[in-house]
Amino acid sequence: MEHRIGLIHGDGIGPEIVDEAKKVLDAVCTKYGHTFVYSKLLLGGASIDACGVPLTDETVGQAKDCDAVLMGSIGGDAKTSPWYQLEPSRRPEAGLLGIRKALNLFANLRPAYLYDELRAACPLREEIIGGGFDMMIMRELTGGLYFGERKTTEVDGVRTAVDTLTYNEQEIRRIAKRGFDIAMKRRKKVTSVDKANVLDSSRLWRAVVEEVAKDYPEVELEHMLVDNCAMQLVKNPAQFDVILTENMFGDILSDEASMVTGSIGMLSSASLNETKFGLYEPSHGSAPDIAGQNIANPIATILSAAMMLRYSLDLDTEADAVESAVKKALAAGYRTVDIMSDGCRQVSTSEMGDLIVSYL
Amino acid sequence: MEHRIGLIHGDGIGPEIVDEAKKVLDAVCTKYGHTFVYSKLLLGGASIDACGVPLTDETVGQAKDCDAVLMGSIGGDAKTSPWYQLEPSRRPEAGLLGIRKALNLFANLRPAYLYDELRAACPLREEIIGGGFDMMIMRELTGGLYFGERKTTEVDGVRTAVDTLTYNEQEIRRIAKRGFDIAMKRRKKVTSVDKANVLDSSRLWRAVVEEVAKDYPEVELEHMLVDNCAMQLVKNPAQFDVILTENMFGDILSDEASMVTGSIGMLSSASLNETKFGLYEPSHGSAPDIAGQNIANPIATILSAAMMLRYSLDLDTEADAVESAVKKALAAGYRTVDIMSDGCRQVSTSEMGDLIVSYL
Ligand SMILES: CC(C)[C@H](C(=O)O)[C@@H](O)C(=O)O
Ligand SMILES: CC(C)[C@H](C(=O)O)[C@@H](O)C(=O)O
Repeated sequence: MEHRIGLIHGDGIGPEIVDEAKKVLDAVCTKYGHTFVYSKLLLGGASIDACGVPLTDETVGQAKDCDAVLMGSIGGDAKTSPWYQLEPSRRPEAGLLGIRKALNLFANLRPAYLYDELRAACPLREEIIGGGFDMMIMRELTGGLYFGERKTTEVDGVRTAVDTLTYNEQEIRRIAKRGFDIAMKRRKKVTSVDKANVLDSSRLWRAVVEEVAKDYPEVELEHMLVDNCAMQLVKNPAQFDVILTENMFGDILSDEASMVTGSIGMLSSASLNETKFGLYEPSHGSAPDIAGQNIANPIATILSAAMMLRYSLDLDTEADAVESAVKKALAAGYRTVDIMSDGCRQVSTSEMGDLIVSYL
Repeated sequence: MEHRIGLIHGDGIGPEIVDEAKKVLDAVCTKYGHTFVYSKLLLGGASIDACGVPLTDETVGQAKDCDAVLMGSIGGDAKTSPWYQLEPSRRPEAGLLGIRKALNLFANLRPAYLYDELRAACPLREEIIGGGFDMMIMRELTGGLYFGERKTTEVDGVRTAVDTLTYNEQEIRRIAKRGFDIAMKRRKKVTSVDKANVLDSSRLWRAVVEEVAKDYPEVELEHMLVDNCAMQLVKNPAQFDVILTENMFGDILSDEASMVTGSIGMLSSASLNETKFGLYEPSHGSAPDIAGQNIANPIATILSAAMMLRYSLDLDTEADAVESAVKKALAAGYRTVDIMSDGCRQVSTSEMGDLIVSYL
């Protein structure tokens, strides 16, 4: 079958890691007899360089013509890159926020789990890791503080800045449903995270999540305050299955969780809307300091491509094959430098891509 | 000299741990020839039980008549306690928020450091702990989402909730100054944490912190995004000296940092206004599950009393003496159950208080 895939190479290490993911996708085509038609889309720094703005209508239009978009990471070094001389709304990150909103990508899935082969990289002690952990963070991505009204005013020489955190019940309900749906395919536990002892938006969040939970009697629902969740991720990550939370809390907690795994170079993500369409990207950043050296870890992007096969293209067998090829490359002892350890064989970005293709 | 000290025993383990701190304060009086005049204040659950509301004008008035207030923890089990059948604004935690605002306690200091004796309790691997870590989190406590306008409305059957995050430059400047002042007495590094790639309030925060930094040329200032900070606390806590941040981010990060130390039963806190007055409390919660068993760790409260001696009463020698007595009790191998490890001697709440007095 033919599928249209948008590729956003992005900034920093983005182009290198997207190339490896494409290599794997091409191998999937050959092996399973599909046709993937690629189009290249510009976003972030690359779009600023080419078009003067981080996101153009053309990119949004192109994305809408695709079945899914695979993206590298975007952004540069905030201290040295000229992009960061621009107004905040014209910087690379604004392009990412813009495309999330333009495509209504409200459901952000960020898996965080411990690879058995990479236990040694986990910052937590063996006693805490125990039998490992495997959670899915379901972050609301188009509401809350990120997209509320904001303004900075100056009255009598005193500047005041305001951001607004707004959620309506429809926004909460649709992300909660996604969270429970995913939990049904996993260990059937949802931890909904909020700050209901302080925020009205969190109290509405909690109420709506309770309502949605009624349709999923098999799923165990637990509410946790965000400050406590930040502690529990360090204390006992294995307690979590699905973490369901709003935009800003999800930003903080998903990054904390990814660091707790010790291997952020391995973590994929998906941003979905109400259709089958999705934007897939590694959880990690654009690492401009190591860009162009062929040493970046392409696995997070390759696993993002696997998520794309599964969620947007309904190619589960192919997704399984990619994930198992990654596991085989790790089991065979191949490592990029970020996850290197004693007794393993260090390989480059492109060698890792080739190896994963060879295990397909 | 005579000092007026308010005592809020609080809920759960609060009364037990405050009693031990008072024991230590009494011993300080005797040894150094001071007079501490105590008054008992009600807050939180205890205030609900006695007066129907979590904070009364009487408590605020009594607190204002004191030089400082020492508090146990407040709140109960949200699942079982009748306090949590009440409206959010009438629950124990609302009393805490209310007293912070009523007394203008905008500067919340939360130290998080690794006790050499308690390394084994730290959830992080030895390689990551390295030479240990010692940070001070300076959290803004009376602004931001906690005290912004909020409302929940229903239009055409759809509920919408709004919280507002507001900071003006005066609020930012006064907390930033406190952060830099503390840094001058420590390792002269400030990490200011915000989400300036998204929020207007964070952009103002960053600009004002930059302005304040000009008055402290010796202090190294670094800006860090909140999601990155949540990662760095796990990856390399030793990089931090003073973390300066707004209310909600400070709530999340200080709890994460306290868990990273592995000994939240040991961590004190201070909430200060523009005067010498302060409210001192342990960083941990009220642990209703172990209340009344004489097993809770009183050290966080005793160290909060030491902070009180130092910051509100200008009794540095006495504060040093209390802190060193705590260290001696630990060095001698005494532990409450929460920090117990092989080869140590387990003691009760009151025994730990007696031991610390004996080492004074
Ligand atoms: C780049 C930034 C705006 C973005 C966010 O905060 O959402 C990033 O941190 C992420 O988590 O995808
Ligand atoms: C009880 C709660 C309102 C409070 C807060 O969020 O400030 C607590 O978590 C704290 O950090 O002191």
